[in-house]
Amino acid sequence: MEGILATYRIVAADRAEAEARAVDVCIEQTVEVTPALCADPVIADRTVARLEGLEPSAPGRWDARVRFPEAVLSAELPQVVNCLYGNVSMKPGVRLVGVALAPSFARLLAGPRHGIAGVRALLGVPHRPLLMSALKPVGRTVAELASYAHAMAAGGIDLVKDDHGIANQACSPFEARVEACAAAVARANAATGGRTLYCPTVTGPADEILRRAEHARDAGAGGLLVSPLVTGLDAMRAVAATTGLPVMAHPALAGAFFPHDDHGISPEVLLGTLMRMAGADLVVFPSWGGRFPFTRETCARLDAALKADLCGLAPALPVPAGGMTLDRVPAMLSVFGRDVVFLIGSALYERSPDLVANAAYFRSLVS
Amino acid sequence: MEGILATYRIVAADRAEAEARAVDVCIEQTVEVTPALCADPVIADRTVARLEGLEPSAPGRWDARVRFPEAVLSAELPQVVNCLYGNVSMKPGVRLVGVALAPSFARLLAGPRHGIAGVRALLGVPHRPLLMSALKPVGRTVAELASYAHAMAAGGIDLVKDDHGIANQACSPFEARVEACAAAVARANAATGGRTLYCPTVTGPADEILRRAEHARDAGAGGLLVSPLVTGLDAMRAVAATTGLPVMAHPALAGAFFPHDDHGISPEVLLGTLMRMAGADLVVFPSWGGRFPFTRETCARLDAALKADLCGLAPALPVPAGGMTLDRVPAMLSVFGRDVVFLIGSALYERSPDLVANAAYFRSLVS
Repeated sequence: MEGILATYRIVAADRAEAEARAVDVCIEQTVEVTPALCADPVIADRTVARLEGLEPSAPGRWDARVRFPEAVLSAELPQVVNCLYGNVSMKPGVRLVGVALAPSFARLLAGPRHGIAGVRALLGVPHRPLLMSALKPVGRTVAELASYAHAMAAGGIDLVKDDHGIANQACSPFEARVEACAAAVARANAATGGRTLYCPTVTGPADEILRRAEHARDAGAGGLLVSPLVTGLDAMRAVAATTGLPVMAHPALAGAFFPHDDHGISPEVLLGTLMRMAGADLVVFPSWGGRFPFTRETCARLDAALKADLCGLAPALPVPAGGMTLDRVPAMLSVFGRDVVFLIGSALYERSPDLVANAAYFRSLVS
Repeated sequence: MEGILATYRIVAADRAEAEARAVDVCIEQTVEVTPALCADPVIADRTVARLEGLEPSAPGRWDARVRFPEAVLSAELPQVVNCLYGNVSMKPGVRLVGVALAPSFARLLAGPRHGIAGVRALLGVPHRPLLMSALKPVGRTVAELASYAHAMAAGGIDLVKDDHGIANQACSPFEARVEACAAAVARANAATGGRTLYCPTVTGPADEILRRAEHARDAGAGGLLVSPLVTGLDAMRAVAATTGLPVMAHPALAGAFFPHDDHGISPEVLLGTLMRMAGADLVVFPSWGGRFPFTRETCARLDAALKADLCGLAPALPVPAGGMTLDRVPAMLSVFGRDVVFLIGSALYERSPDLVANAAYFRSLVS
């Protein structure tokens, strides 16, 4: 057993059609040649993905287990993503619903460098649920954003992130913003004895992102926020490898991948398994009950994918978000347990004009 | 008029619902705060996207024209992509169907550096349709791939690319492959007086891709193939800016973005307008009549998006592909005209065991 075992849910009327479509996936996702050309034993035995199982999973739906050999994957994430869903994305009725790693392949991946335990250790919070808020909205000045960061840290929020769309706009340029917000959080930490981590958005040009990440680390950022479906999944891995800081994945663009149940990549594979493979220590996603239509069941599956055994890769923290309000904390605890980060944005600003008091109130809700 | 004017097709029962959903898009894609928090004039006037028009486009469908100010876009492509479809991807019934640039914003983008005229000039082919084939499949050795490249160039193929999944596998490591194939094409060119360009796949780790692109250029590659939806769209721009070579976009993962007409990003925006904005000189996409279900109409719209006026950005070459056969050349000419690259893969290998003769035959079909 080697490489990756991917499970595709395939729309087909009967087993014969399902098998033909599954074999087509094996060829399309690796050698991309006509069946005649991939009959050559050198190719057939070495680089064509192999169909290892095919079972009915629902009426008219079949789960095909497809093994990608390491000879094709090459231990580089872009090629892994390409193998898993590159070309077949353009064929209807094929959805990627599972990714399992062989131990030999998992060893080639760094996975989350900090994971749940590492992030908790950095924060000095071994047990209780973690709290996060966001500096927002885009359009605020550096001084305004830094004052919010200071207030949130002073009030006891564990993680303070930029809104993911606060990139490098003229109203709050990257370097000035990161330096001011990191310094503001450091001042608050010094005053309270707390360990709040500031996590700026480093999503940016491909030839800038690693420099931004290093600049943020050097300025005192304690973690980094990346939108890996915008930057490319591998950029998040590179940010983590380059800086050594915890990285948090934002789901921007993710919804393009799961428009309905017969296409795309399931939320738990895309935002769970693949994000862990690419090194995310924390993963933001829309919680049920907010302004996005994620269900409670999807959130539970995503939570499981972030924490399940994955050949030794560390588990990652779920960060349910998207219009969360303070009164939803108990309901979310029931799904995610204590290993969760509650991300409250607008609702923290709206409770009262006193952001420190709002943060302290939020902090008082979890113990 | 400034920034970007995006058109979203919105599912709504009536104008009131459509307008509410369109306003929600304006907020979600920029400031991400509750309506109360974005009422502050500083934010409302400066960074919230503006709804500039709303018209019914089909029963239960409304086209909303949304203006993104430059203050939010920041002239960085990752943020542009994020604004256009980041969060709203996770809400149902919102499809990005149009992107128009203000001249002031278009000037911030390089666009295709070579474009149709530049690629033709490099090839010395001013008028006729261009020809491309692919080195394949993954699993072939460096020597085998180089021999194919030599034969294709000797037979008169204009552009020889790697299969997009030939990345950095042990059977044909990146550097050795690119050096051997570039040298093989150079030998053939020297013998024939031709100007075939070899375009290797440079898709790879985020912290490697620019080095690979430069290595390929220095080894003699005449163009570069990137899968920008895997690497992040901006990595393609960076590859073009760093090397100065023509870049070709491969559509891997694209199908995730257009599963049905009420979600995602339309093929002509994703593979047409956005690819040009990110600097693609050539764009590969599935042609109708091949093994992917693109229609003739989709291909025609994509062709138009690659060639239409876009505030001074150069037009890019369509590369219809995906199971094309030699007999389909006339039908494709009727849609794409002469400014097209015919990409024939398996069918070129299958015609006979003599790849030089097969290439020469392919070449004889266009004039």
